[in-house]
Amino acid sequence: MNIKHIIESQQFKVPRIMELFERTNAMKKIVARGGTLDYQSKILATLFYSPSTRTRFSFESAMYRLGGKVLSTENAREFSSEIKDERLEDTIRIINNYCDVIVLRHHETGGARRAASVSNVPIINAGDGSGGQHPTQALLDLYTIHQECHTIDGLSVAFIGALDNGRTARSLAYLLSKFDRVKLYFIAPKELQMKQDILDHLDEHEISYELTNTTKNIIEKVDILYVTRIDRERLQKKNVNLEEYNITPSILKRLKKNARILHPLPRSVEISSEVDSDPRAAYFRQAENGLYLRMALLSMLFDGE
Amino acid sequence: MNIKHIIESQQFKVPRIMELFERTNAMKKIVARGGTLDYQSKILATLFYSPSTRTRFSFESAMYRLGGKVLSTENAREFSSEIKDERLEDTIRIINNYCDVIVLRHHETGGARRAASVSNVPIINAGDGSGGQHPTQALLDLYTIHQECHTIDGLSVAFIGALDNGRTARSLAYLLSKFDRVKLYFIAPKELQMKQDILDHLDEHEISYELTNTTKNIIEKVDILYVTRIDRERLQKKNVNLEEYNITPSILKRLKKNARILHPLPRSVEISSEVDSDPRAAYFRQAENGLYLRMALLSMLFDGE
Amino acid sequence: MNIKHIIESQQFKVPRIMELFERTNAMKKIVARGGTLDYQSKILATLFYSPSTRTRFSFESAMYRLGGKVLSTENAREFSSEIKDERLEDTIRIINNYCDVIVLRHHETGGARRAASVSNVPIINAGDGSGGQHPTQALLDLYTIHQECHTIDGLSVAFIGALDNGRTARSLAYLLSKFDRVKLYFIAPKELQMKQDILDHLDEHEISYELTNTTKNIIEKVDILYVTRIDRERLQKKNVNLEEYNITPSILKRLKKNARILHPLPRSVEISSEVDSDPRAAYFRQAENGLYLRMALLSMLFDGE
Repeated sequence: MNIKHIIESQQFKVPRIMELFERTNAMKKIVARGGTLDYQSKILATLFYSPSTRTRFSFESAMYRLGGKVLSTENAREFSSEIKDERLEDTIRIINNYCDVIVLRHHETGGARRAASVSNVPIINAGDGSGGQHPTQALLDLYTIHQECHTIDGLSVAFIGALDNGRTARSLAYLLSKFDRVKLYFIAPKELQMKQDILDHLDEHEISYELTNTTKNIIEKVDILYVTRIDRERLQKKNVNLEEYNITPSILKRLKKNARILHPLPRSVEISSEVDSDPRAAYFRQAENGLYLRMALLSMLFDGE
Repeated sequence: MNIKHIIESQQFKVPRIMELFERTNAMKKIVARGGTLDYQSKILATLFYSPSTRTRFSFESAMYRLGGKVLSTENAREFSSEIKDERLEDTIRIINNYCDVIVLRHHETGGARRAASVSNVPIINAGDGSGGQHPTQALLDLYTIHQECHTIDGLSVAFIGALDNGRTARSLAYLLSKFDRVKLYFIAPKELQMKQDILDHLDEHEISYELTNTTKNIIEKVDILYVTRIDRERLQKKNVNLEEYNITPSILKRLKKNARILHPLPRSVEISSEVDSDPRAAYFRQAENGLYLRMALLSMLFDGE
Repeated sequence: MNIKHIIESQQFKVPRIMELFERTNAMKKIVARGGTLDYQSKILATLFYSPSTRTRFSFESAMYRLGGKVLSTENAREFSSEIKDERLEDTIRIINNYCDVIVLRHHETGGARRAASVSNVPIINAGDGSGGQHPTQALLDLYTIHQECHTIDGLSVAFIGALDNGRTARSLAYLLSKFDRVKLYFIAPKELQMKQDILDHLDEHEISYELTNTTKNIIEKVDILYVTRIDRERLQKKNVNLEEYNITPSILKRLKKNARILHPLPRSVEISSEVDSDPRAAYFRQAENGLYLRMALLSMLFDGE
């Protein structure tokens, strides 16, 4: 069998992405009418070396809605082993025997790729290292943009927050670079700006982008404002004005009528709760989409597609 | 849909309680004959901010016996998040997408009510804060009393232990206040006595009660002895005679022939293990009843009743 | 009902073991063709007082492949309780109500036996204390030997590593003592050698064995090399030459052509990864066998056989 792993968002081509989005729509309808799917014999294992209840539940719920079963670890890093130096590769080889797909969150960049190199069952990268990727998050972000704006080509997307360590922003930037006439803005303090490897990738794909440390004259232009967490301690040390990067009702006034605000969640203070009731705040719909997209992705893996 | 949350024991009226108890009896019979129920498409999520394997297993087992599926957290507080200040309300909104009911244990009094205020799926309070409530425990306690004594009206019930922080004693006192001619005794060192809000509630409902710091002349009179944990360190500091609050074979001799001893479990030293074999020791039967009562409660929520 | 617990490997007689192995073969075939079994109404609870993701997943996956359901604890010891001194017996009595079988890993030798003494559902010992047993590991080790060598009678088996605290080596030695003409070698530094109780047991059963602190003239003779973890810190303190106990390609050259290397896993440095690709390295096949053997064992318990 041709095993397909999901390691990084670059691996997806546009026709494949559109196919996935159609299947995601179908899953949404099936869940809405309380329907069930036929993957009873399948077992998904979540192997989380750093805990994330939300991402874990999203995958596990997707598996249940498909009819399957779930093996679960809340914190594999602390609790997995009697020995400190166990190799990830060994763990993967052993757990291969007990499941049909492994969802891996690993604390080291490149962890998912190492796991895939020895695995007989598909590995899904659910975040690897702070500078790594989180491709299923990027796919659900993109699906949400597509659902909310009915297109991706031609959109202006601003990323705001700590972008240097932002796994989700990195993964989404890769995906957006596959579409036509997109324009990207990276809004961050200089020290936390998007890293050069992503900028090089955008240059290669002839994607237009701007780096800035202010929302001024940017917020007004964008279709999508993608907000990410920002480590307040890191910023305070560097004497940066935090408020510049917070989304508040005053920012809403400047935002286009049809724009959308996304956030991978959980949030800290970077979006104030008064923003939640604005119809442009799409982040809770985005979290919901994660369920349907992951159902679609898992079913494609099980079907060998 | 009219979403019903289970937040505090006061919310249940007597006819509703009796309906629930009948359904609990039915569940007991179904489990005894290995029968199954038809809630395959339902997902329950346990969100425990302070761990309790027993309560968690009781709910999860109830869900399995109903045919449903389970998303589980052993310790959401430590492991849930990359950020320290995530709002409970955000977590609930996100997890709403992944399940059909949330069983929440939260470390802050009022946590369950806050969760319910934003939730699209039923919230079941499985304990909130040390001074909060634990309504399903109170319902299974009351069910056990009803099963063992065939009535609730007219019973004498003594609570013994650290009653000031006793979530379960508080919740059960609320429930008992709905019945006729019950008489309550609160046996605790002065510093750990039942709080005034409960006493006020009992006064309002014209329930007769006594406060005391000794079992003398009380043990002999009661139909139900409801024992709760007592923090030995707190007591030792206050120079209180611990043994006064321990249930030993010598207490058994003074207890009425048809009385029953209940305990929410786990216990520490407050009931000695020699007591276990006495037919009046009902605490393990009480734990078993938790399964059937929670099955009944969950099925009523799913049926929209 | 006659409840059967699985506490120690001595309890199994040879005909019973062979029956189990035949059922294990059947389970292997059922899994290979994606078949399902009919234990939908059964619930397995894993109660792990020291965490082991591998062993836990092996049991939980076996239960899922049988069609059943799973209640899970990653770390019952830290998270189980609000009180520190809860008795294991109480926990078992309560959890009895919520499941049909309990898989227990306990940090104290004898924990499984204590649990079994009060349990109404079968207890499976998944490791108790460092000097205790791990009978299902020993059974899957023996099954692997039988699968790989087509016999057990007459085999030479060398155990290497820290044998004094080696639960798995101890349990397997008990099992091997039931077969004819086996010869055992215990290769360990003097301070970490197999304990006297096992040696006495072998004497009683007239099993021939040798104690040694070197692989010299042993490796060349054995059919099975059973490698276990060795605590490097303990050895370094005692000024022992670590390399003597490591399995490297140079050891492979001395090993018989039809010999097999087993390891209960996880490993640390005691087997170098270059050994993995040698066909005699059977440890990953051994881990796979754990699934089928545990399916067979659970189904026998459920069938009351």
